[in-house]
Amino acid sequence: MAHISLPEGLPGIVGPMAFRPETARPMNELANVLLVAPNSLERSERELIATYVSYLNECTFCHSCHGAVAAFHLDGDDDLVNAVRRDYRSAAISEKLKSLLAIAGKVQRDARSVSAEDIADARAQGATDIEIHDTVLIAAAFCMYNRYVDGLATWAPEDPAAYAAMGEQLGTKGYSVEMPA
Amino acid sequence: MAHISLPEGLPGIVGPMAFRPETARPMNELANVLLVAPNSLERSERELIATYVSYLNECTFCHSCHGAVAAFHLDGDDDLVNAVRRDYRSAAISEKLKSLLAIAGKVQRDARSVSAEDIADARAQGATDIEIHDTVLIAAAFCMYNRYVDGLATWAPEDPAAYAAMGEQLGTKGYSVEMPA
Repeated sequence: MAHISLPEGLPGIVGPMAFRPETARPMNELANVLLVAPNSLERSERELIATYVSYLNECTFCHSCHGAVAAFHLDGDDDLVNAVRRDYRSAAISEKLKSLLAIAGKVQRDARSVSAEDIADARAQGATDIEIHDTVLIAAAFCMYNRYVDGLATWAPEDPAAYAAMGEQLGTKGYSVEMPA
Repeated sequence: MAHISLPEGLPGIVGPMAFRPETARPMNELANVLLVAPNSLERSERELIATYVSYLNECTFCHSCHGAVAAFHLDGDDDLVNAVRRDYRSAAISEKLKSLLAIAGKVQRDARSVSAEDIADARAQGATDIEIHDTVLIAAAFCMYNRYVDGLATWAPEDPAAYAAMGEQLGTKGYSVEMPA
């Protein structure tokens, strides 16, 4: 049971977002700018960064949900998403994305540990300033979303089909700024 | 030096916000809803929660800046802000705020550790659902802002007068959604 009285039956972050639409609006707008808006990083790449950080934070709802969105953008390739969760260094992803995931992991643990060498590695793989910026902010933002979901003890569905449905909806429609009434 | 090319001379979060106004807008809007908008928690109380979490994250820019905003709302009482940083349990603040700071500290470390007992303690001190919600989200949001500031290695002024000026400006005008051109 959640720590506060949330609308019933809404999974994960959707409950507190319906409870407090004033804060939901900018949180969804931020997600749309970072994860949905046109970007030189693919939507699947940005969702993999979100999934990886949420997995490191052990936020079941968020890494399941965003993993499903990533898989949606990867023609349903759940195996690749799982490979990134487990050990992105050996996953079949670009060297550039690996260098960005290394930065994201450091932001999750202790952002001060991101080094000039980490940045140089990413640049050597072709990462631009805005891609590095967005990687740091996606990682930082999921340290917020994850804590919001878990700090209120929200409900995480156990059925993988529930996440697949969310993955398709969010992958198609983006993050809704207008919340359910 | 920051990890990416930011506009020169802007302190802390202001640099990356000027670099990427698309993400700055919702981040500032969220700060305004949480820290500035009318609320049953005082502005000083909300800024103390932000300061405490930023201090736990060892984010010099954020805990100095928001500590200065808190002090501005406390008639310049820097000593009280420092007491909250050092050991809020012995500080001259309400028992309710202490119970909310306990929750905020758990959200900073591991949000899953917020317990039913922590929530019951806050309720016993008169905290409402929305106050508990906002405490969790302020703590979560500062885990984002802090990582954004430090993950990009932004510049933190050393002069206390610089923070005092920010405290007065932010305390008076709130968090600007319109960024400098």
